[in-house]
Amino acid sequence: MLAPILAIEALLSSDGKLPVNVKFFYEGQEEIGSPTIGPFIKDNIELLKADMIFSSDGGQWSEDQPSLVYALRGLVGCEITVTGASGDQHSGTHGGGIANPIHALSHLIASMKNLDGRITIEGFYDDVIELSDEERELFSKLPFDEKDYIEKLGVPDTFGEIGYTIQERLWARPTLELNGIWGGYQGTGSKTVLPSQAHAKITCRLVANQKPERVYKLIKAHLENNRPPGVTVEVKKLAGDADPFLVPRGHNSSQIAGRVLQDLYGKEPLATRVGGSIPVMSTLLTELGIHATMFAFGLDDEKIHAPNEFFRLSSFKKSQVGYCKLLEEFGK
Amino acid sequence: MLAPILAIEALLSSDGKLPVNVKFFYEGQEEIGSPTIGPFIKDNIELLKADMIFSSDGGQWSEDQPSLVYALRGLVGCEITVTGASGDQHSGTHGGGIANPIHALSHLIASMKNLDGRITIEGFYDDVIELSDEERELFSKLPFDEKDYIEKLGVPDTFGEIGYTIQERLWARPTLELNGIWGGYQGTGSKTVLPSQAHAKITCRLVANQKPERVYKLIKAHLENNRPPGVTVEVKKLAGDADPFLVPRGHNSSQIAGRVLQDLYGKEPLATRVGGSIPVMSTLLTELGIHATMFAFGLDDEKIHAPNEFFRLSSFKKSQVGYCKLLEEFGK
Repeated sequence: MLAPILAIEALLSSDGKLPVNVKFFYEGQEEIGSPTIGPFIKDNIELLKADMIFSSDGGQWSEDQPSLVYALRGLVGCEITVTGASGDQHSGTHGGGIANPIHALSHLIASMKNLDGRITIEGFYDDVIELSDEERELFSKLPFDEKDYIEKLGVPDTFGEIGYTIQERLWARPTLELNGIWGGYQGTGSKTVLPSQAHAKITCRLVANQKPERVYKLIKAHLENNRPPGVTVEVKKLAGDADPFLVPRGHNSSQIAGRVLQDLYGKEPLATRVGGSIPVMSTLLTELGIHATMFAFGLDDEKIHAPNEFFRLSSFKKSQVGYCKLLEEFGK
Repeated sequence: MLAPILAIEALLSSDGKLPVNVKFFYEGQEEIGSPTIGPFIKDNIELLKADMIFSSDGGQWSEDQPSLVYALRGLVGCEITVTGASGDQHSGTHGGGIANPIHALSHLIASMKNLDGRITIEGFYDDVIELSDEERELFSKLPFDEKDYIEKLGVPDTFGEIGYTIQERLWARPTLELNGIWGGYQGTGSKTVLPSQAHAKITCRLVANQKPERVYKLIKAHLENNRPPGVTVEVKKLAGDADPFLVPRGHNSSQIAGRVLQDLYGKEPLATRVGGSIPVMSTLLTELGIHATMFAFGLDDEKIHAPNEFFRLSSFKKSQVGYCKLLEEFGK
């Protein structure tokens, strides 16, 4: 956020004026699902009108390799509650007589995604734009080391939808992840309870052109159609919808940003995607009709959202020069 | 516990002596899995030697209908831990790249028991003694109302192994119940975490002649053989094993108890089983070679283990008379 401001100050103090008009728009609600940003943008379209939008959110491939993100995944989530008896029961007295909601919930979860990573909800993949051969070719050339990835995350192996590489799955395929599950006794040792309820939280990462509301309805329908015997199933939508975001090829502001990065690093920027979601990008697109370009300098190891988060001083300098060059480029 | 003591006091004050020698044995550890009762019995066989054993634990069918329990279910339990990445991950950054332990655990749980109530662990039913036609006939005549049962427990429907009635399933079929499950985020709203671990607690009720140790080994083998891709699975046995307990037909002390109950209530006692477990019964059988008879007067609605637990004064009187008659019966 600071780099473009300092770039403008630098240009103003050296040239006395800017080559173009600039508006700043601060999104400070992202981590809580941006509850009022959408309505605010809707109500202030005149104020926000622009020819191009650049966002300082995002990152680059490595310290000496620039990149331009051309897609983000969207998001939709829900909470499932499975209820058997109206209260907890003794597993000796009633085990065998009534359903166990944890068992029922486990069957429901298993019914939504196979062990080959394929999501089995009817219609789930209907609106997914398949990767082009060009993109798959591009991804395959990225310096990605599966062994490093496994070691970094401490997993016994990678896992995901068959027929796609890890990079393809992380960036261009939708997911269905269990974020939490709970029910019954969680303490030390044993308690022979037959619990009344079990709960799970699910979020899906979406890709263009999936719609959060439609995917939610498909999940809800799947859960209702597959209700196990002896229990009731309740589904509740969670806040924080985000449309997926996909910048078209040959997009104006991305091409300008690309030239600036090429000049700055002496290397052509990689075209990459991001697996996460930045909801305001889709909102700006919907309301203003503009694909924002992420012009950003963050690196992977900077402990985002974690203790001792940091940003390199070298990146800070580079980003100021970058934004200066970007503004100058517009003047040409 | 109090009724037999008061019965003895009454007999001593009226007759000055007892018709037989009596030893009292107090089991005060049942609710914590009886950790030292087993070794104590083993070490004190001479002290505990007896011709018959009666236990005041258990219950009767209804206030005016006596019953004799001739079988209890056994118990074995374990805890499962499924681990993916070494720490929690961002579901946008890594969703699609690595396995989700909650998803993997759900598949494992679903693989152990079908939605028709059948346990699918190889060899699980091998040692189960099937119900005789006589027992099934007997159970079918018990005054059991499924509608009442559904209403009392507040379930949408009953659930269990096909091919067996509820009573058969509760008393004479083994179970595999999920007692608890947990992993990831359990708070309000959404957190887009891809959790590192998921956990579940399982206990099985066993019937004669299943052995806790063998059933545990079958479960462990099933979990290891069905390990989902991208995760590790750890299985840990929980304390509290109990062998199932089944009194043979025509058993001596049960016949005496039956005559006393017939005399006391003017009705033949029903032969019933209990779905729960009383581990000391099997321990006494193993160490002393005696099938204890449950001579008990508790009723179903007395809120066992719950607030406002109670015992009817009328049952208290009946039980004292019952124990007096039992002791007198031995004198004949």
